[in-house]
Amino acid sequence: MSAEPTLPNSYAADPVFAMHRGGKIHVQSTVEVEDHAALAMAYTPGVARVCSAIAEHPELASEYTWTGNTVAVVSDGTAVLGLGDIGPSAAMPVMEGKALLFKRFAGIDAVPVCISCTDVDEIVRTVAALAPSFGGINLEDISAPRCFEVEDRLRDMLDIPVFHDDQHGTAIVALAALRSAARVVGKDLSDLRVVVAGAGASGVAVTKLLLSVGIGDIAVADSKGLIYQGRDGLGAVKQALSEATNKARLTGSTELALHGADVFIGLSGATIAEEAIAQMAPGAITFLLSNPDPEIHPDIARKHAAVVATGRSDFPNQINNSLAFPGVFRAALDVRAHTVTENMKRAAAEAIAGLVGDDAAPDYVIPSQFDERVAPAVTAAVADAARADGVARR
Amino acid sequence: MSAEPTLPNSYAADPVFAMHRGGKIHVQSTVEVEDHAALAMAYTPGVARVCSAIAEHPELASEYTWTGNTVAVVSDGTAVLGLGDIGPSAAMPVMEGKALLFKRFAGIDAVPVCISCTDVDEIVRTVAALAPSFGGINLEDISAPRCFEVEDRLRDMLDIPVFHDDQHGTAIVALAALRSAARVVGKDLSDLRVVVAGAGASGVAVTKLLLSVGIGDIAVADSKGLIYQGRDGLGAVKQALSEATNKARLTGSTELALHGADVFIGLSGATIAEEAIAQMAPGAITFLLSNPDPEIHPDIARKHAAVVATGRSDFPNQINNSLAFPGVFRAALDVRAHTVTENMKRAAAEAIAGLVGDDAAPDYVIPSQFDERVAPAVTAAVADAARADGVARR
Repeated sequence: MSAEPTLPNSYAADPVFAMHRGGKIHVQSTVEVEDHAALAMAYTPGVARVCSAIAEHPELASEYTWTGNTVAVVSDGTAVLGLGDIGPSAAMPVMEGKALLFKRFAGIDAVPVCISCTDVDEIVRTVAALAPSFGGINLEDISAPRCFEVEDRLRDMLDIPVFHDDQHGTAIVALAALRSAARVVGKDLSDLRVVVAGAGASGVAVTKLLLSVGIGDIAVADSKGLIYQGRDGLGAVKQALSEATNKARLTGSTELALHGADVFIGLSGATIAEEAIAQMAPGAITFLLSNPDPEIHPDIARKHAAVVATGRSDFPNQINNSLAFPGVFRAALDVRAHTVTENMKRAAAEAIAGLVGDDAAPDYVIPSQFDERVAPAVTAAVADAARADGVARR
Repeated sequence: MSAEPTLPNSYAADPVFAMHRGGKIHVQSTVEVEDHAALAMAYTPGVARVCSAIAEHPELASEYTWTGNTVAVVSDGTAVLGLGDIGPSAAMPVMEGKALLFKRFAGIDAVPVCISCTDVDEIVRTVAALAPSFGGINLEDISAPRCFEVEDRLRDMLDIPVFHDDQHGTAIVALAALRSAARVVGKDLSDLRVVVAGAGASGVAVTKLLLSVGIGDIAVADSKGLIYQGRDGLGAVKQALSEATNKARLTGSTELALHGADVFIGLSGATIAEEAIAQMAPGAITFLLSNPDPEIHPDIARKHAAVVATGRSDFPNQINNSLAFPGVFRAALDVRAHTVTENMKRAAAEAIAGLVGDDAAPDYVIPSQFDERVAPAVTAAVADAARADGVARR
C-alpha cells in the first residue's frame, strides 16, 4: 500500500489540474428513491414491468431507458490531440471533456469509453457489444487508417449512428467555413482548387466531403508528398483518394501544389513556408488547423491570404468540431436516426454557414462555438436531412 | 419512418412507466465551460497537460479523471430478476436502477453497460477492454454457470475490483442476517446445519461464504435435487460444491434435507411445502429469498420458524443486496483496492450484523436498506480488510 499519488511539481501549480481533479462529469439520478415505495417502482419489483415491455417491444428501449439520449465517446487512445498514441487511460481526460461538450451544447448524456484494444477486429467487436447501452457512438482519436475501417464496419453492423468526429466533425466545420470564405472572396466552390495537407482521419474526410459538394479540384498530400494515381505503396484509402483527386496529377510537395491554388487546408501538423502562401492565387483562403501550432503563424498567412482560419480560440475564425457534433447527434437522437448520411453532414455544414450568411467577412467565416444559435440550427437541418433520406424512425 | 412508439394500453396507466420515461440517470458536468478560457482548460489545449501527466504517471488517472469514482454495471441480460434471458436492451432499466442505488447509497458514478454477447470469451474480452474507463466492475444478472468463469477470469486479468453482485452481494447480506438470526435463536454458526435451495449464482456464493466462516454443514439442492459427491453429470462448479458440502451425503429432495435442519435459504424460485418447514429443528431460520414470490408465504413459514426473512420490503427482515454493494465498492474505490478479497466480503457481513447487534430479534435480523448507518459501516470495515489483506493502494 502506498500513499495517494502526488502530483509532480511541474504540474502542481497548474490550475488545469485543479479543474480536472476527480474528473469533469458525474452520474446524476433523475428520480428520487427515499422510501420503499419509490424503490419498488424504480427497482424491483416494479422495474420488471418496464423490462418486460422492452423485451416485447424493443423500440420502447429508447423511450424508457436513458439510451435515447446517450452517446458513447469511444477511443483507443492512439491519436489523442497532438499527443499521439498515449493509450486509453491517458486519453480519458479528453473523452470526459468531449462528454462535457455534448452536455453543454446539446444536452446529450455522453459516456467516455476508453478501450484497451487497438486491433480493428477487437475494436469493432467491443463497440458492437456495447451498442445496446447507447443511442449513438462517437468515435474519437483513433489513428488512421484503422479509424476508417472501424467506422465503416460499425456503420454496417449497427442500427444506431456511428460518427468518427475527427473525420466528419472536422469536415463539416471546414466545409461550412469554406462556403463562407468563398463568399468573401467571390469565388464559386466549383472553381476552387484546394490543397489539403494531411491524409489522416480529418484530411481524408474533409477531402471526401468537399468533393461531394462539387469542389473544383483537390490535391492531397501526406508525409511523402502529393498523392497521385500510380504512386507506389498507396493503401486502400489513399488509393481511392488518388482516383478522386489531383486531376493535374501533380507530384512533389504541398508547397508546389500551392502555386496558384485557391485554398489551403492544413491538417498534418507540418509547417508551411510563407513563400508558398504568397504564391497562392489572389483571394487565397488558408485554414491552418493543426493544433496547438498552426502550419504557419496566422498573422504571417494573413499578409498573403484573404481569409485565414485556425483551430485556435485566440485568433479569428476558429474552426472547431464543437460547432458540428452536438447538433448532429442531437438530431440523430431526436429522430432516432439509424445512421448519419452524407446529406446530414452537408446539411450541418450549410446550417452553420447559413448563420454567417451575408455577414461573411475575412474575420468572420464561422460562428463562435458559444453562438447559441449553432446547435439548434444544426439540429434542425440534420433532422430534416435524416427524414428526407429516410433514416429517421420518428 | 414511423411515429414515436406508443406504450401498449396494458402499461399506459402504470405509474412505473412514467417514472422510467427518459431513463433514471443522466450525466452532469462538474465544471462550467461558458467561455473560451474555461474551454481551453477543460478541453484543448489545456487538457493535453493532464493527458501527458497520466501517460507518464498512470496512477494519476484515478485522481484526475472520473474513473476513481466510477463503476460499470455490466450485464448480458441473461438472468434478469425473475425474468430470465431477456437480452441486453430489456435489461437496461435494471442496470440503470442499480446505478441509481450506487449513487444514492454510496455516491458512486455507475454506468449501465448492457452487452450483446453471451459467450464467456466474448464477455471477458469486452469487459477487459473497457477496464481503463472505470474504477470497478459490477457484474449483474449473468446466468450461471457462465457467471463464475466470467468473474474468475476478469478478476485474474484486471487490477480493479470485479464483483458479481448476484453472487457476493447476496452472500454478504445472507451471512449478515444469519449471524443475527443465530443470535436470536441462541445457536453457534458452527453448529448450524443449513439447506440451500438453488445452485445458481447466489446459491453457490452464499454456500461458499457460509463455509468460509465455519458453518456446521450445508446441503445444496439444484433442480435435480440435493448435490452429493458422485452425483452424475455435475459440472465443475457443482462438483466442487459436492466435495465441500453435504457431509451426510444426503440424496433426494430439498424437503428431505430440511428434516431437522437449522436453516433454510431459498434461492431457487421453487416452492417449499409447509410440512417441510414444520419438520425443521426447533428455532428454525428460514430465508425465503426468491423474488417476487418467496418459496413459501412468510406468514406460513412464521408459524413454524423462529426467524423468517425475505427479499421483499413489505415483510420484516428484507435481505437486500443494496445493504452490501454500495459500501463494498465505496471502500474499494476509496482505498484503490485492486480486488475484492474474501476477508472484505466477510468484513462487510460483520459490519451489517454489527449494526443489529444486541437488538437482534425475530423481526430484526438485518437493518433497513434506508438505515443510513449501513453504507458507512460497510465502507469502513471493508476498507480496513482491504488494507489488512494488502490489496489497498492507499
